[in-house]
Amino acid sequence: MSNELKYAVFGSGSWATAIVKMLCENQTEVGWYMRSVYTKEHLIKEQHNPSYLSSVEFNIEQLKISNDINEIANYADVLIFVVPSAFIYSELEKLTVDITNKTVVSAVKGIVPETGLLLGEHFHDIYKVPFQNIAVIAGPCHAEEVALERLSYLTISCDDAKKAQHIANALSSDYIKTKISDDVIGTEYAVMLKNIYAIAAGIAHGLGYGDNFQSVLMSNAIREMKRFIKKKHKMKRNINNSAYLGDLLVTGYSLFSRNRMFGNMIGKGYTVKSAQMEMSMVAEGYYATKSAHLINQKNKKKTKMYIIDAVYNILYEGKDPKKEFIKLAEKLD
Amino acid sequence: MSNELKYAVFGSGSWATAIVKMLCENQTEVGWYMRSVYTKEHLIKEQHNPSYLSSVEFNIEQLKISNDINEIANYADVLIFVVPSAFIYSELEKLTVDITNKTVVSAVKGIVPETGLLLGEHFHDIYKVPFQNIAVIAGPCHAEEVALERLSYLTISCDDAKKAQHIANALSSDYIKTKISDDVIGTEYAVMLKNIYAIAAGIAHGLGYGDNFQSVLMSNAIREMKRFIKKKHKMKRNINNSAYLGDLLVTGYSLFSRNRMFGNMIGKGYTVKSAQMEMSMVAEGYYATKSAHLINQKNKKKTKMYIIDAVYNILYEGKDPKKEFIKLAEKLD
Repeated sequence: MSNELKYAVFGSGSWATAIVKMLCENQTEVGWYMRSVYTKEHLIKEQHNPSYLSSVEFNIEQLKISNDINEIANYADVLIFVVPSAFIYSELEKLTVDITNKTVVSAVKGIVPETGLLLGEHFHDIYKVPFQNIAVIAGPCHAEEVALERLSYLTISCDDAKKAQHIANALSSDYIKTKISDDVIGTEYAVMLKNIYAIAAGIAHGLGYGDNFQSVLMSNAIREMKRFIKKKHKMKRNINNSAYLGDLLVTGYSLFSRNRMFGNMIGKGYTVKSAQMEMSMVAEGYYATKSAHLINQKNKKKTKMYIIDAVYNILYEGKDPKKEFIKLAEKLD
Repeated sequence: MSNELKYAVFGSGSWATAIVKMLCENQTEVGWYMRSVYTKEHLIKEQHNPSYLSSVEFNIEQLKISNDINEIANYADVLIFVVPSAFIYSELEKLTVDITNKTVVSAVKGIVPETGLLLGEHFHDIYKVPFQNIAVIAGPCHAEEVALERLSYLTISCDDAKKAQHIANALSSDYIKTKISDDVIGTEYAVMLKNIYAIAAGIAHGLGYGDNFQSVLMSNAIREMKRFIKKKHKMKRNINNSAYLGDLLVTGYSLFSRNRMFGNMIGKGYTVKSAQMEMSMVAEGYYATKSAHLINQKNKKKTKMYIIDAVYNILYEGKDPKKEFIKLAEKLD
């Protein structure tokens, strides 16, 4: 891949904004698609995103901002999608540009709810993007700490190691260290599953469980994640690498994680609906829970996934969190 | 092992007090050795430990408290040692009772500094206790949460599964779940090593690193721990079980961990001596760091242990924490 490749980010939330910031450290120009006309105009006028990471100042000369997804898709060679999974399907429906020869990168933290596919699979099946053109960006990385330029590590996964390295280089800086991996499917699942475990951690906290229980929960979660991913895509991987365990920890221990916060409200007795209304948004892990459940239903021999089952029963089957966690606690070790 | 076996705890810190509380849920009588005459008298008069977990009330009828280590060693069949590793050598020197036929349990979180041996090895080598009579209690378990009766999990390791189960039963209750393991050496090393990683987490925090870095540090720590333990005692173990990973997390993420606090002061610029004076105690991990370093020095082919090396260089070689962590950050992934 040439060094002159043009990069673009699709989305304007905190993680999208953080990725644009990272790219601006290295690229002459970065394409940026966002749906909101207001956000675009504010950005151009005030040099910062009005709603997310607003402390990050951009040099507008360096950005090619548009509300037209096709304009940006046409402009760039490497397209990084950072739209919440709940909106990705409808956003992509606007896409008319042929992207089969472009590199498509997922920084979406979940599954496409409408199809039950990982974003990579979605691009492959619906948009005919070959697998070697599909990459994934995984953390552990809170966007807020990127804004503060606190040292963070990313893993870029792609079947094509050269492409992975090119993207890694484009994102690297004084405060971003990168490594590459060939486990595209595994890292995408890890990114999705961690949010379910963060909801579980939140529920536990809301119910009054303490730090001892939380550490047992996380220790069981990483073992469950390993089983789940192995069933979907068997290969040699060290589940304790940062892209899996690190990402689980930064989300499961974060008091700022929206998924953990959502779980906490559920644990404290809010209904799913009232917790969602209170947060005025839907936590990624909410959809991921259903997707993970459905995926396991399809397995001939089901994977033991006690934690995901408990979260599913609470969120989708109306089960009482307290009782469900008493049952779960018996299964953990 | 008969159900009538008598249990005793040696030590009067917070973890010792928590273990006495657990035993009192099941045993008619529990022996309790403590060095301090004042603590003994206060306990008998006020029904609680004056210095640690003082919210826990004991039924004094249920306790056989003594300042004479031999009286308690003589009384009990199962001796649980919970003395800080820095004092265990001198405490044990008082022991004249033959303990070769008793079950000896280590809940000491470190290595005997004078001999560089794990407590189990120390009992075997110096006191001729056969290995099948030696057990280890591992967390993840903050004593403070035991006091609050928050659900916690313990792992009891012993070569003799029946003994492990007997001890597990003696500690189990509504709020304590137990499992057994045959990895005595591995769990003892894990208990010791986690404190070094907690110091590392504290140093990182003191230096201003954030949550993203912390999760990468923990992800690297568990891999390093696995390598270290494998070198000392190769067997099939899942390093992500609660006794290893869970215990690492509860310590590494705890704001109340003395080791993390000590590290935090070092990261903020205190010298080792002033941090120790300020805390009016020595963090277990301080000794563990030296022991782990010495153990690795003796390995023919050294284990890569970047985090322990960095902590060692800072605590024992006077290296600058900031520079040392910049070097360490390059090696993590």
